[in-house]
Amino acid sequence: MKKAKLPQTTVARLPVYLRSLVYLAGRGVQIVSSEELAQLAGSNAAQLRKDLSYLGEFGTRGVGYDVDQLINEISKWLGLLRDRSVVIAGMGRLGGALVGYPGFSQKGFRIVAVFDHDPAKVGRGVDGLIVRDMSELGSIVSQNGGVDIGIIATPASAAQAVADQLVRSGIRGILNFAPITIEVPDEVFVRQVDLSVELQILSYHLQKAERVGVLV
Amino acid sequence: MKKAKLPQTTVARLPVYLRSLVYLAGRGVQIVSSEELAQLAGSNAAQLRKDLSYLGEFGTRGVGYDVDQLINEISKWLGLLRDRSVVIAGMGRLGGALVGYPGFSQKGFRIVAVFDHDPAKVGRGVDGLIVRDMSELGSIVSQNGGVDIGIIATPASAAQAVADQLVRSGIRGILNFAPITIEVPDEVFVRQVDLSVELQILSYHLQKAERVGVLV
Repeated sequence: MKKAKLPQTTVARLPVYLRSLVYLAGRGVQIVSSEELAQLAGSNAAQLRKDLSYLGEFGTRGVGYDVDQLINEISKWLGLLRDRSVVIAGMGRLGGALVGYPGFSQKGFRIVAVFDHDPAKVGRGVDGLIVRDMSELGSIVSQNGGVDIGIIATPASAAQAVADQLVRSGIRGILNFAPITIEVPDEVFVRQVDLSVELQILSYHLQKAERVGVLV
Repeated sequence: MKKAKLPQTTVARLPVYLRSLVYLAGRGVQIVSSEELAQLAGSNAAQLRKDLSYLGEFGTRGVGYDVDQLINEISKWLGLLRDRSVVIAGMGRLGGALVGYPGFSQKGFRIVAVFDHDPAKVGRGVDGLIVRDMSELGSIVSQNGGVDIGIIATPASAAQAVADQLVRSGIRGILNFAPITIEVPDEVFVRQVDLSVELQILSYHLQKAERVGVLV
Protein backbone atom coordinates (compact mmCIF):
# COMPACT_ATOMS: atom_id res chain seq x y z
CA MET A 1 0.00 0.00 0.00
CA LYS A 2 1.59 3.24 -1.14
CA LYS A 3 0.43 6.30 0.68
CA ALA A 4 1.35 9.94 0.33
CA LYS A 5 2.02 12.07 3.37
CA LEU A 6 -1.08 14.02 4.36
CA PRO A 7 -0.94 17.73 5.23
CA GLN A 8 -0.94 18.25 9.01
CA THR A 9 -4.17 20.22 8.83
CA THR A 10 -5.87 17.36 6.98
CA VAL A 11 -4.64 14.87 9.58
CA ALA A 12 -6.11 17.07 12.31
CA ARG A 13 -9.51 17.17 10.57
CA LEU A 14 -9.80 13.45 9.78
CA PRO A 15 -10.73 12.50 13.39
CA VAL A 16 -13.49 15.10 13.31
CA TYR A 17 -14.90 13.69 10.05
CA LEU A 18 -14.63 10.23 11.54
CA ARG A 19 -16.59 11.25 14.64
CA SER A 20 -19.34 12.72 12.46
CA LEU A 21 -19.46 9.60 10.28
CA VAL A 22 -19.73 7.30 13.30
CA TYR A 23 -22.57 9.49 14.55
CA LEU A 24 -24.35 9.12 11.19
CA ALA A 25 -23.76 5.36 11.06
CA GLY A 26 -25.28 5.07 14.55
CA ARG A 27 -28.42 6.73 13.19
CA GLY A 28 -28.61 4.33 10.26
CA VAL A 29 -27.44 6.81 7.61
CA GLN A 30 -25.71 5.00 4.70
CA ILE A 31 -24.95 7.82 2.26
CA VAL A 32 -23.96 11.39 3.13
CA SER A 33 -23.31 14.39 0.90
CA SER A 34 -20.13 16.43 1.32
CA GLU A 35 -22.29 19.40 2.37
CA GLU A 36 -24.02 17.46 5.15
CA LEU A 37 -20.84 15.84 6.40
CA ALA A 38 -18.93 19.14 6.32
CA GLN A 39 -21.65 20.87 8.29
CA LEU A 40 -21.69 18.15 10.95
CA ALA A 41 -17.92 18.39 11.23
CA GLY A 42 -17.88 22.18 11.40
CA SER A 43 -15.99 22.42 8.10
CA ASN A 44 -17.06 23.37 4.56
CA ALA A 45 -17.75 21.13 1.59
CA ALA A 46 -14.81 22.29 -0.55
CA GLN A 47 -12.36 21.71 2.30
CA LEU A 48 -13.87 18.32 3.04
CA ARG A 49 -13.65 17.18 -0.58
CA LYS A 50 -10.05 18.32 -0.77
CA ASP A 51 -9.14 16.54 2.47
CA LEU A 52 -10.78 13.30 1.37
CA SER A 53 -9.21 13.48 -2.08
CA TYR A 54 -5.82 12.81 -0.44
CA LEU A 55 -7.15 9.44 0.73
CA GLY A 56 -8.16 8.28 -2.74
CA GLU A 57 -11.21 8.27 -4.96
CA PHE A 58 -14.37 8.22 -2.87
CA GLY A 59 -17.87 9.42 -3.24
CA THR A 60 -20.11 9.62 -6.25
CA ARG A 61 -20.78 13.02 -7.75
CA GLY A 62 -24.37 14.02 -7.06
CA VAL A 63 -24.87 11.11 -4.66
CA GLY A 64 -22.42 11.33 -1.82
CA TYR A 65 -20.12 9.22 0.28
CA ASP A 66 -20.78 5.71 1.53
CA VAL A 67 -20.66 6.19 5.31
CA ASP A 68 -19.30 2.75 6.24
CA GLN A 69 -16.67 2.78 3.51
CA LEU A 70 -15.45 6.21 4.55
CA ILE A 71 -15.30 5.21 8.23
CA ASN A 72 -13.16 2.26 7.24
CA GLU A 73 -10.85 4.32 5.01
CA ILE A 74 -10.27 7.10 7.52
CA SER A 75 -9.69 4.54 10.29
CA LYS A 76 -7.11 2.84 8.09
CA TRP A 77 -5.30 6.12 7.41
CA LEU A 78 -5.30 7.01 11.09
CA GLY A 79 -3.96 3.60 12.08
CA LEU A 80 -7.11 2.89 14.09
CA LEU A 81 -7.84 -0.60 12.79
CA ARG A 82 -5.96 -1.96 15.78
CA ASP A 83 -6.06 -0.89 19.42
CA ARG A 84 -3.38 1.43 20.74
CA SER A 85 -1.93 0.96 24.21
CA VAL A 86 -1.55 4.00 26.46
CA VAL A 87 0.09 4.81 29.79
CA ILE A 88 -0.67 7.90 31.86
CA ALA A 89 1.99 9.58 34.01
CA GLY A 90 0.63 11.77 36.79
CA MET A 91 -2.42 10.74 38.81
CA GLY A 92 -3.49 14.16 40.05
CA ARG A 93 -6.99 15.34 39.27
CA LEU A 94 -6.38 15.69 35.54
CA GLY A 95 -4.73 12.27 35.26
CA GLY A 96 -7.57 10.75 37.26
CA ALA A 97 -10.11 12.36 34.93
CA LEU A 98 -8.27 11.05 31.86
CA VAL A 99 -8.29 7.45 33.14
CA GLY A 100 -12.06 7.62 33.20
CA TYR A 101 -12.51 9.58 29.95
CA PRO A 102 -15.00 7.40 28.05
CA GLY A 103 -13.89 8.53 24.59
CA PHE A 104 -10.49 6.83 24.90
CA SER A 105 -11.59 3.24 25.28
CA GLN A 106 -14.53 3.72 22.89
CA LYS A 107 -12.04 4.69 20.21
CA GLY A 108 -9.63 1.84 20.81
CA PHE A 109 -7.12 3.56 23.10
CA ARG A 110 -6.52 1.09 25.91
CA ILE A 111 -4.96 2.42 29.12
CA VAL A 112 -2.63 -0.33 30.31
CA ALA A 113 -0.97 1.38 33.28
CA VAL A 114 -0.96 4.61 35.29
CA PHE A 115 1.93 6.14 37.21
CA ASP A 116 2.76 8.68 39.87
CA HIS A 117 5.85 9.41 41.92
CA ASP A 118 3.92 10.29 45.09
CA PRO A 119 4.10 7.37 47.59
CA ALA A 120 0.66 8.40 48.89
CA LYS A 121 -0.82 7.63 45.47
CA VAL A 122 1.24 4.59 44.44
CA GLY A 123 -0.65 1.35 45.14
CA ARG A 124 -4.08 2.97 45.10
CA GLY A 125 -6.72 1.76 42.67
CA VAL A 126 -8.03 4.02 39.88
CA ASP A 127 -10.68 2.57 37.55
CA GLY A 128 -9.44 -0.96 38.04
CA LEU A 129 -5.77 -0.03 37.57
CA ILE A 130 -3.22 0.14 40.39
CA VAL A 131 -1.14 3.34 40.41
CA ARG A 132 2.50 2.31 39.88
CA ASP A 133 5.65 4.17 40.84
CA MET A 134 7.27 6.15 38.01
CA SER A 135 10.46 4.12 38.49
CA GLU A 136 8.58 1.04 37.25
CA LEU A 137 7.70 2.66 33.90
CA GLY A 138 10.38 0.93 31.83
CA SER A 139 9.71 -2.55 33.18
CA ILE A 140 5.93 -2.25 32.83
CA VAL A 141 6.21 -1.00 29.25
CA SER A 142 8.42 -4.03 28.52
CA GLN A 143 5.94 -6.40 30.19
CA ASN A 144 3.28 -5.05 27.82
CA GLY A 145 5.50 -5.73 24.82
CA GLY A 146 5.91 -2.00 24.25
CA VAL A 147 3.35 0.79 24.58
CA ASP A 148 2.22 3.13 21.81
CA ILE A 149 1.39 6.37 23.61
CA GLY A 150 2.31 8.07 26.87
CA ILE A 151 0.15 10.82 28.33
CA ILE A 152 1.87 13.41 30.54
CA ALA A 153 -0.52 14.77 33.18
CA THR A 154 2.11 15.97 35.63
CA PRO A 155 2.90 19.52 36.78
CA ALA A 156 5.08 21.48 34.34
CA SER A 157 8.14 21.05 36.57
CA ALA A 158 8.12 17.26 36.14
CA ALA A 159 7.10 17.05 32.48
CA GLN A 160 10.50 16.99 30.78
CA ALA A 161 11.89 14.30 33.09
CA VAL A 162 8.78 12.20 32.53
CA ALA A 163 9.03 12.72 28.76
CA ASP A 164 12.65 11.49 28.90
CA GLN A 165 11.51 8.37 30.77
CA LEU A 166 8.73 7.70 28.25
CA VAL A 167 11.18 8.02 25.35
CA ARG A 168 13.74 5.73 27.05
CA SER A 169 11.03 3.10 27.50
CA GLY A 170 10.53 3.06 23.73
CA ILE A 171 7.27 5.03 23.54
CA ARG A 172 7.03 7.02 20.27
CA GLY A 173 3.86 9.05 20.80
CA ILE A 174 3.35 11.58 23.62
CA LEU A 175 0.29 13.61 24.52
CA ASN A 176 1.43 16.41 26.82
CA PHE A 177 -1.05 18.21 29.08
CA ALA A 178 1.64 19.98 31.12
CA PRO A 179 1.81 23.68 30.19
CA ILE A 180 5.39 23.52 28.94
CA THR A 181 7.04 22.61 25.63
CA ILE A 182 8.91 19.32 26.02
CA GLU A 183 11.90 18.32 23.92
CA VAL A 184 12.09 14.86 22.38
CA PRO A 185 14.12 13.13 19.65
CA ASP A 186 12.92 13.52 16.04
CA GLU A 187 11.41 10.04 15.88
CA VAL A 188 9.00 10.80 18.74
CA PHE A 189 5.69 12.59 18.03
CA VAL A 190 4.30 15.02 20.56
CA ARG A 191 0.88 16.66 20.70
CA GLN A 192 0.59 19.49 23.18
CA VAL A 193 -2.81 20.13 24.78
CA ASP A 194 -3.33 23.53 26.36
CA LEU A 195 -6.91 23.96 27.47
CA SER A 196 -6.42 27.72 27.95
CA VAL A 197 -5.91 28.10 24.20
CA GLU A 198 -9.55 27.18 23.63
CA LEU A 199 -10.69 29.81 26.13
CA GLN A 200 -8.49 32.40 24.43
CA ILE A 201 -10.05 31.61 21.06
CA LEU A 202 -13.50 32.06 22.61
CA SER A 203 -12.32 35.32 24.11
CA TYR A 204 -11.42 36.61 20.62
CA HIS A 205 -14.93 35.91 19.35
CA LEU A 206 -16.56 37.43 22.44
CA GLN A 207 -14.50 40.58 22.04
CA LYS A 208 -15.44 40.88 18.36
CA ALA A 209 -19.12 40.55 19.27
CA GLU A 210 -18.77 43.13 22.05
CA ARG A 211 -17.15 45.59 19.66
CA VAL A 212 -19.92 45.17 17.12
CA GLY A 213 -22.45 45.55 19.94
CA VAL A 214 -20.97 48.92 20.88
CA LEU A 215 -20.93 50.18 17.29
CA VAL A 216 -24.49 49.18 16.45
CA MET B 1 -10.17 51.05 16.52
CA LYS B 2 -10.97 49.42 13.20
CA LYS B 3 -10.05 45.77 12.94
CA ALA B 4 -10.38 43.26 10.15
CA LYS B 5 -11.69 39.80 10.83
CA LEU B 6 -8.86 37.32 11.27
CA PRO B 7 -8.85 33.92 9.57
CA GLN B 8 -9.96 31.16 11.97
CA THR B 9 -6.63 29.38 11.62
CA THR B 10 -4.77 32.57 12.57
CA VAL B 11 -7.00 33.03 15.62
CA ALA B 12 -6.19 29.47 16.68
CA ARG B 13 -2.44 30.09 16.39
CA LEU B 14 -2.32 33.44 18.22
CA PRO B 15 -2.65 31.85 21.71
CA VAL B 16 0.26 29.56 20.87
CA TYR B 17 2.44 32.51 19.82
CA LEU B 18 1.35 34.31 22.96
CA ARG B 19 2.37 31.39 25.18
CA SER B 20 5.80 31.28 23.52
CA LEU B 21 6.24 35.05 23.90
CA VAL B 22 5.32 34.95 27.59
CA TYR B 23 7.87 32.15 28.02
CA LEU B 24 10.55 34.31 26.35
CA ALA B 25 9.62 37.39 28.41
CA GLY B 26 9.95 35.29 31.56
CA ARG B 27 13.52 34.48 30.53
CA GLY B 28 14.35 38.14 29.96
CA VAL B 29 14.32 37.99 26.13
CA GLN B 30 13.35 41.37 24.62
CA ILE B 31 13.70 40.78 20.87
CA VAL B 32 12.88 37.58 18.99
CA SER B 33 13.26 36.70 15.31
CA SER B 34 10.34 35.20 13.39
CA GLU B 35 12.39 32.00 12.97
CA GLU B 36 12.97 31.60 16.71
CA LEU B 37 9.40 32.44 17.65
CA ALA B 38 7.98 30.14 14.97
CA GLN B 39 10.15 27.27 16.16
CA LEU B 40 9.06 27.74 19.78
CA ALA B 41 5.43 27.80 18.68
CA GLY B 42 5.75 24.75 16.44
CA SER B 43 5.01 26.82 13.33
CA ASN B 44 7.20 28.14 10.51
CA ALA B 45 8.51 31.65 9.96
CA ALA B 46 6.51 32.40 6.80
CA GLN B 47 3.27 31.36 8.47
CA LEU B 48 4.11 33.37 11.57
CA ARG B 49 4.88 36.53 9.58
CA LYS B 50 1.66 36.15 7.63
CA ASP B 51 -0.39 35.64 10.80
CA LEU B 52 1.15 38.65 12.52
CA SER B 53 0.74 40.82 9.41
CA TYR B 54 -3.04 40.70 10.00
CA LEU B 55 -2.51 42.45 13.34
CA GLY B 56 -0.60 45.38 11.85
CA GLU B 57 2.96 46.43 11.18
CA PHE B 58 5.28 44.82 13.70
CA GLY B 59 8.86 43.74 13.77
CA THR B 60 11.91 45.22 12.15
CA ARG B 61 13.38 43.43 9.16
CA GLY B 62 16.68 41.82 10.12
CA VAL B 63 16.10 42.53 13.81
CA GLY B 64 12.91 40.87 14.97
CA TYR B 65 9.87 41.46 17.10
CA ASP B 66 9.74 43.34 20.38
CA VAL B 67 8.54 40.64 22.78
CA ASP B 68 6.60 42.90 25.17
CA GLN B 69 4.94 44.85 22.38
CA LEU B 70 3.83 41.67 20.63
CA ILE B 71 2.47 40.19 23.89
CA ASN B 72 0.42 43.34 24.33
CA GLU B 73 -0.86 43.37 20.73
CA ILE B 74 -1.87 39.71 20.66
CA SER B 75 -3.54 40.06 24.06
CA LYS B 76 -5.48 43.04 22.74
CA TRP B 77 -6.65 41.12 19.66
CA LEU B 78 -7.67 38.13 21.77
CA GLY B 79 -9.60 40.33 24.20
CA LEU B 80 -7.32 39.29 27.05
CA LEU B 81 -6.59 42.72 28.50
CA ARG B 82 -9.43 42.15 30.94
CA ASP B 83 -10.35 39.05 32.95
CA ARG B 84 -13.05 36.73 31.63
CA SER B 85 -15.53 35.11 33.99
CA VAL B 86 -16.25 31.39 33.63
CA VAL B 87 -18.73 28.89 35.04
CA ILE B 88 -18.33 25.12 34.88
CA ALA B 89 -21.31 22.78 34.58
CA GLY B 90 -20.63 19.21 35.65
CA MET B 91 -18.49 18.43 38.69
CA GLY B 92 -17.49 14.89 37.80
CA ARG B 93 -13.81 14.06 37.59
CA LEU B 94 -13.21 16.15 34.48
CA GLY B 95 -15.06 19.17 35.89
CA GLY B 96 -13.14 18.81 39.14
CA ALA B 97 -9.85 18.71 37.25
CA LEU B 98 -10.79 21.82 35.26
CA VAL B 99 -11.56 23.84 38.41
CA GLY B 100 -7.98 23.26 39.50
CA TYR B 101 -6.35 23.68 36.08
CA PRO B 102 -3.66 26.29 36.80
CA GLY B 103 -3.52 27.66 33.25
CA PHE B 104 -7.02 29.16 33.49
CA SER B 105 -6.48 31.62 36.33
CA GLN B 106 -2.92 32.39 35.20
CA LYS B 107 -4.35 33.54 31.88
CA GLY B 108 -7.12 35.67 33.34
CA PHE B 109 -10.00 33.19 33.18
CA ARG B 110 -11.70 33.46 36.55
CA ILE B 111 -14.02 30.61 37.58
CA VAL B 112 -16.88 32.28 39.43
CA ALA B 113 -19.18 29.30 40.02
CA VAL B 114 -19.46 25.54 39.48
CA PHE B 115 -22.63 23.49 39.03
CA ASP B 116 -23.95 19.96 39.14
CA HIS B 117 -27.42 18.47 39.25
CA ASP B 118 -26.48 15.61 41.58
CA PRO B 119 -27.74 16.37 45.14
CA ALA B 120 -24.76 14.39 46.49
CA LYS B 121 -22.39 16.93 44.96
CA VAL B 122 -24.36 20.15 45.45
CA GLY B 123 -23.14 22.03 48.54
CA ARG B 124 -19.70 20.42 48.54
CA GLY B 125 -16.57 22.57 48.35
CA VAL B 126 -14.25 22.38 45.34
CA ASP B 127 -11.20 24.66 45.34
CA GLY B 128 -12.89 27.26 47.50
CA LEU B 129 -16.12 27.21 45.48
CA ILE B 130 -19.37 25.62 46.62
CA VAL B 131 -21.00 23.34 44.03
CA ARG B 132 -24.39 24.88 43.18
CA ASP B 133 -27.45 23.21 41.76
CA MET B 134 -27.91 23.58 37.99
CA SER B 135 -31.29 25.23 38.61
CA GLU B 136 -29.45 28.18 40.18
CA LEU B 137 -27.43 28.89 37.02
CA GLY B 138 -29.53 31.81 35.78
CA SER B 139 -29.67 33.61 39.11
CA ILE B 140 -25.96 33.17 39.82
CA VAL B 141 -24.99 34.43 36.38
CA SER B 142 -27.19 37.49 37.04
CA GLN B 143 -25.61 38.02 40.47
CA ASN B 144 -22.22 38.12 38.73
CA GLY B 145 -23.46 40.78 36.31
CA GLY B 146 -23.28 38.26 33.46
CA VAL B 147 -20.67 35.61 32.76
CA ASP B 148 -18.48 35.36 29.65
CA ILE B 149 -17.90 31.64 29.21
CA GLY B 150 -19.59 28.40 30.23
CA ILE B 151 -17.68 25.11 30.27
CA ILE B 152 -19.71 21.93 29.75
CA ALA B 153 -18.12 18.98 31.55
CA THR B 154 -21.24 16.81 31.77
CA PRO B 155 -21.96 13.44 30.16
CA ALA B 156 -23.07 13.65 26.52
CA SER B 157 -26.67 12.95 27.46
CA ALA B 158 -26.93 16.17 29.50
CA ALA B 159 -24.87 18.47 27.28
CA GLN B 160 -27.58 19.96 25.05
CA ALA B 161 -29.89 20.79 27.97
CA VAL B 162 -27.00 22.43 29.82
CA ALA B 163 -26.03 24.37 26.69
CA ASP B 164 -29.62 25.65 26.43
CA GLN B 165 -29.45 26.79 30.06
CA LEU B 166 -26.13 28.56 29.51
CA VAL B 167 -27.53 30.36 26.46
CA ARG B 168 -30.71 31.38 28.32
CA SER B 169 -28.57 32.85 31.10
CA GLY B 170 -26.95 35.16 28.54
CA ILE B 171 -23.59 33.38 28.19
CA ARG B 172 -22.14 33.82 24.68
CA GLY B 173 -19.07 31.55 24.76
CA ILE B 174 -19.19 27.80 25.40
CA LEU B 175 -16.35 25.31 25.73
CA ASN B 176 -17.83 21.83 25.32
CA PHE B 177 -15.98 18.76 26.61
CA ALA B 178 -18.96 16.43 26.16
CA PRO B 179 -18.45 14.14 23.15
CA ILE B 180 -21.47 15.45 21.26
CA THR B 181 -22.11 18.37 18.93
CA ILE B 182 -24.35 20.92 20.66
CA GLU B 183 -26.63 23.32 18.84
CA VAL B 184 -26.73 26.98 19.82
CA PRO B 185 -28.00 30.24 18.27
CA ASP B 186 -25.72 32.03 15.79
CA GLU B 187 -24.60 34.67 18.29
CA VAL B 188 -23.11 32.05 20.61
CA PHE B 189 -19.59 30.72 20.01
CA VAL B 190 -18.78 27.11 20.77
CA ARG B 191 -15.41 25.36 20.89
CA GLN B 192 -15.57 21.59 21.04
CA VAL B 193 -12.78 19.73 22.86
CA ASP B 194 -12.41 16.05 22.11
CA LEU B 195 -9.33 14.62 23.73
CA SER B 196 -9.52 11.45 21.62
CA VAL B 197 -8.82 13.54 18.50
CA GLU B 198 -5.30 14.18 19.77
CA LEU B 199 -4.70 10.48 20.31
CA GLN B 200 -5.98 9.75 16.80
CA ILE B 201 -3.55 12.28 15.33
CA LEU B 202 -0.71 10.60 17.24
CA SER B 203 -1.93 7.25 15.93
CA TYR B 204 -1.58 8.52 12.35
CA HIS B 205 2.06 9.45 12.93
CA LEU B 206 2.82 6.19 14.72
CA GLN B 207 1.34 4.21 11.84
CA LYS B 208 3.40 6.16 9.30
CA ALA B 209 6.55 5.44 11.27
CA GLU B 210 5.66 1.76 11.59
CA ARG B 211 5.09 1.53 7.84
CA VAL B 212 8.43 3.11 7.10
CA GLY B 213 10.00 0.78 9.64
CA VAL B 214 8.66 -2.24 7.75
CA LEU B 215 9.81 -0.96 4.39
CA VAL B 216 13.36 -0.06 5.43
